[in-house]
Order: sequence, then C-alpha cells, then structure tokens
Amino acid sequence: MNTTAEAGAFYAVGVGPGDPDLVTLRAAALVHTADVLIAPRSARSDASMALAIVEAHRPPEGQELIDHVYPMTRDDASTRASWEGVADTAAAHCEAGRSVVQITLGDPLVYSTSSYLIPPLLERLGPERVRIVPGISAFQAAAVPFAEALTLQEDRMLVMTATDLDAVAEALDRCETLVLYKAGRHVEALADLLDARGLADRARLVCYAGQEDREYVTRDLRSAADGRHGYLATVIIHVGRRPWEASAP
Amino acid sequence: MNTTAEAGAFYAVGVGPGDPDLVTLRAAALVHTADVLIAPRSARSDASMALAIVEAHRPPEGQELIDHVYPMTRDDASTRASWEGVADTAAAHCEAGRSVVQITLGDPLVYSTSSYLIPPLLERLGPERVRIVPGISAFQAAAVPFAEALTLQEDRMLVMTATDLDAVAEALDRCETLVLYKAGRHVEALADLLDARGLADRARLVCYAGQEDREYVTRDLRSAADGRHGYLATVIIHVGRRPWEASAP
Repeated sequence: MNTTAEAGAFYAVGVGPGDPDLVTLRAAALVHTADVLIAPRSARSDASMALAIVEAHRPPEGQELIDHVYPMTRDDASTRASWEGVADTAAAHCEAGRSVVQITLGDPLVYSTSSYLIPPLLERLGPERVRIVPGISAFQAAAVPFAEALTLQEDRMLVMTATDLDAVAEALDRCETLVLYKAGRHVEALADLLDARGLADRARLVCYAGQEDREYVTRDLRSAADGRHGYLATVIIHVGRRPWEASAP
Repeated sequence: MNTTAEAGAFYAVGVGPGDPDLVTLRAAALVHTADVLIAPRSARSDASMALAIVEAHRPPEGQELIDHVYPMTRDDASTRASWEGVADTAAAHCEAGRSVVQITLGDPLVYSTSSYLIPPLLERLGPERVRIVPGISAFQAAAVPFAEALTLQEDRMLVMTATDLDAVAEALDRCETLVLYKAGRHVEALADLLDARGLADRARLVCYAGQEDREYVTRDLRSAADGRHGYLATVIIHVGRRPWEASAP
C-alpha cells in the first residue's frame, strides 16, 4: 500500500473508463507522487479525459504536465514515430532521476496508447524501470448497467473492434459473449447483421461507460445509429451460454 | 467520490486479482461503510482471498461478516441452489435497511461467484437496489510482468477457460491473443498443443497474478506442469498481431 512513484522509473497507469471512483489505489498514489505526468489526448479532443479522471489526485504544485497530442491515424509507422518523441522525453526525465507517470484511459495493455510507449521505454530504460498498473477497461464498465454476466462457467468472451464486419460475423459463431470496441460508426451495419442472425435482442450498447454525466445506455443499437454518441461506444452481444455440462470435466 | 454504501442496497464488488493496491477507490469506500460484508470462499480454501485483499479497509467494529463457503462443483443446479440461500440472507438485510457488500476476486461479471448472486437479488430487490462495481480481472494483472500488449489496433482477444482442449485449439485460429483461465491442471496438454502449432514461445503463464508473495511467472508452461502452482493459473498466448492495415478502414 501507499505506493510512491520511484525516482528514475516510468509507469504506464490505467485510470479506468471515466468514473474517478474506478481508479485504483495504486493509480491514485502514483499520480499524486509523480514528478512528471504525461496525459495523452487525441487530435480530436480538446482535453485529456484521462487527466480529468485523476485531476483530484494531482499534487497542488511541483508536478510537470506533458500534454501529448497524438494523431488519429490508422497508420502504424506514423503512430509509432509520434510516440518515439514522447519516449525520448520520458526517458530523459527518468535518466535525470525523476519519476514519470503516463496516464491512459482504461487499461494500459488493452487498445491503449501505452502500448506504443512501453516498447521504446523498455529499450531505453530496461525492464526494471518500466512498470505497468492495470485499470478497469471500458467493457467492464459497459456491462454494469445491464447487470448481466460477461462470462460464467465455460463461456468464451471475444474482445475486438467493430471495424471489420466480416470478422465480427465470424466471431458470433465462436464465442458466447462478443465485446466490440469503437462501434460508433458501425452500429447500423451491426444492427443489420444481428437482425439477420436473429440476435437483435442480445445486443447492449454503452457510450462513455462509467461517465456519470454523459453515459448513454441502450438495448436498441439503432437508437445510437445517428453517430451522436461518438467514438467511445462499446457493444456487448450475449450470443449464448456454455455451461459446465457442455465440456468434458 | 467518497461513495458510501447506501441503506437497503446490495453491492457486488470486484476487489481485483490479489494486490491490495489494485482495489478501486469505490470498492475500498464501500467495504469501509457496508453494514454487512459477504466474503465467499471455496470449500477448498481455508480463508477468503477477497477478504484478505480488503481487510485494511474494514471498519474497526460494527460490520457483520458473512463467511459463505460454496461447493467446488461443476453442477449448475446445485451451485445456483447454494447461492439462493445467500441471496435470501442478503435480501433480508437489505429489507431491514442495511447495506450489503459482497466482495469477489477480480471482476464481478467475469467468471465470478457474484453472477450467481445477482439474478436472485434482482428478483428480490429490483434493479435500483442492486449495484455492481467492476474490478481488475486476473488476465490484466497476468499481462503486467511481461509488459506486452494484450490488444492493439485490430487485435482480437479471446478469454476462456482451459478446460476443453478442442475449443482451445480452435480458438488459436480465431484470435491474436488467447487468455486461458483455470489452466492449472491443463498446462502439460496445452504445452503439447502449442508445440504442435509452433507456438511454444508465445505462451506466458502466471499463477496468483498480482499477489506479491506467491506470484509465479514463466514463459515455459512445462515448468508449471507439476500442478503445485495451483488452480488460479492464467495463460496468455500471443498468437499474432492484426494491424490496422489488415482490415478495411
């Protein structure tokens, strides 16, 4: 308990889906004691959502804030290049004996900007000085309003993005619970697919999961098809159940 | 912030994988303020691991502790029957105006005992008085020692149990990251399967993820084949990557 950010170390810290109460004790303590805080935001956002979540835990003074704006592109090389510069800056701070915390929405190893920062920092600082703190991922918060188990007994849960509809269609045959991230622009096509499969009543959609003031929750995908609920939409499809009895012990 | 357990409400609270620092602020506050705390443990365990994780947050006095021992059986009907009694007790406390918190390892909607307690309590108390607090799941803590992304860009992550090896073999063709829970008794067979597929170097095994004193971490499944690392083994298999470029935008 009472973790303190260690001089010379880099931390990739998940701050959860949006609710400040869903931050872990370790994340809060690290944000409170870090010399340098890196708060990434996409080029589409005015402010870092991750920063808003942990604002209350920041020290009153003396913490350097790095506001890194990253491009919203689907190009691997340019994305990695944009993070190399941040890695250089973070490594320089660590080499100078400062502690550096990068905050990220959700979990740092699940569709996270941290995954671009961790490999170059492992190269520069070595594994002993690169630490990872897990956070609640959006799908976990998205399941809460419906109070339905994501997995039980022998259920398989597949987590993927909604981008490739052919892959989504295939996935429906191979799991009991399908979680789709970044579903915002694909809800209409998804609704058509689920209608065709007789699964229309199995879908749940949550936008801005766990963010009290703007969370949007529905069982009707088409109600979110106008796109106003944005990029951070998560869809959960309860395809079926796979009880213990379905598999050999 | 400063959540207080509400009179008459039931909370299913995830306390994370084992590290007391990976408890969320909400979970800690609810454990601190609950009138009644339900701490389940399996018939195989001497003490509740969930209770040990949050022991420091319990109030010094006045909290009733219900130590519920549940059977380790793979029978759906008898498992649900054993939880009906707990649901009756919890509902009676709520009806008498007390707040009830059930703590559970990991996340309450991911392979959790909470999933047996929530449906009967929804029936007895209604949706307004049944609340769910997500927690860090074991796979998230298991990924930390290796500092490797679970998902990035268009990667698909499948989470399942290791019980049915045919289903595991099929899953290897359908995802980039495969997470296997309850792998303890299956590591030898898993190692054989991965050898046959040329994936032996892609497996990571963690037992008691996030539990400082007894966490066991290896890239060699066979080193854990003697079974001494127990039931709570999680295996992560990094089958491959699926970059943005692999799917249409």
